[in-house]
Amino acid sequence: MKIGIIGATGMSGQKIYHEAQARRHEVTAIVRNREKAQQLLGADAHLLVKDAFNLTFSDLADFDVIVEAFSVPIGKHLGYLHLDIAAHLVHLLRNQATPRIIFILGAASLLNDQNTPFLESIKKAPGAEAWIDTPATQAYELELLRTATNVNWTGISPSLNYVDGPKTEYVRGENHALFNNAGKSEVNSGTLATALLDEIEQPQAKQTRFTVRNAD
Amino acid sequence: MKIGIIGATGMSGQKIYHEAQARRHEVTAIVRNREKAQQLLGADAHLLVKDAFNLTFSDLADFDVIVEAFSVPIGKHLGYLHLDIAAHLVHLLRNQATPRIIFILGAASLLNDQNTPFLESIKKAPGAEAWIDTPATQAYELELLRTATNVNWTGISPSLNYVDGPKTEYVRGENHALFNNAGKSEVNSGTLATALLDEIEQPQAKQTRFTVRNAD
Repeated sequence: MKIGIIGATGMSGQKIYHEAQARRHEVTAIVRNREKAQQLLGADAHLLVKDAFNLTFSDLADFDVIVEAFSVPIGKHLGYLHLDIAAHLVHLLRNQATPRIIFILGAASLLNDQNTPFLESIKKAPGAEAWIDTPATQAYELELLRTATNVNWTGISPSLNYVDGPKTEYVRGENHALFNNAGKSEVNSGTLATALLDEIEQPQAKQTRFTVRNAD
Repeated sequence: MKIGIIGATGMSGQKIYHEAQARRHEVTAIVRNREKAQQLLGADAHLLVKDAFNLTFSDLADFDVIVEAFSVPIGKHLGYLHLDIAAHLVHLLRNQATPRIIFILGAASLLNDQNTPFLESIKKAPGAEAWIDTPATQAYELELLRTATNVNWTGISPSLNYVDGPKTEYVRGENHALFNNAGKSEVNSGTLATALLDEIEQPQAKQTRFTVRNAD
């Protein structure tokens, strides 16, 4: 399939790019910085060099799937950009069956066993003011997507610990955080990329969000 | 002050344009259609002809206040445009003290005396599927604004009945719908424009929403 990845040079984006490439999809990294992208993804990486806020529908129209793996530096109060870019992409893709768009959401919107988002507990952490804007905005981003009933969207949340690492087998869930038998909620970036490509190839989650953890 | 009005040819926008002009503000109608604007606002109307979705920060930077009086035809499932344009403008005006932006919201987000939004009752009206997207989206638009803590925004909601009519004295409230002694919740477009210009000249509502009704 033709897959475009926004934020392809980030931790998630790189793994998704390589996983898509390994599966022989026609993958394009949508990036702002050509040199950085070639350094991280390979000199022969297929690029669309454009700020995501300047993307138009015609930039996206030929893709089957867009992956929004946008990220911002933590601690600089730029979390709002997650919402702004989601709103921009949602606007472009209203009333279009394709491309389908898959958003990498944070884990803060995942529910605990009292059906409360983890955001509620993490925002009480000491010093949370410095970085809470990113998880809070990503949680709100999911609410925005849920209003977008005329957009072909899917969301994927990592587990509570999201670490850069190779792919593993995975366990898939829906809106509740997943924990292994040792009480750990963790997923590797490679594992998330695998689950994401599986979802792209065999769609199961339409206008909803799913989550994954590393299998033991 | 320099005031720009998005949607200046609509029911609200026309009254706001004329009220601002009568008060000797330097007012610009931001419109898509020059001929329609000249017909409705006068051949000498000061225009910026541009689709609101294509506005950039530099288009807005010289204004003291932007009024978002955007509207869409009811019954065509275009209500989502209220959210999309709000998100676009919010993005442009992040971390800017000026221009201040004032959004004309719907009445559906106003609360009844049980603190429930009127949206909850109006969505049960027979046939509501045909038009509920507009009030529902405008209610959600207020939620989006409330997350925009780095934007200099204000919202104004009309009363439950919003009718085209001349200005009257008005009563101002906050988040609860206002009713007169006869149990009527109504505001004229001219009255809303007056209250809006009063708020522009003497700001009281920062990052919050207020409402008005016609005084008896």
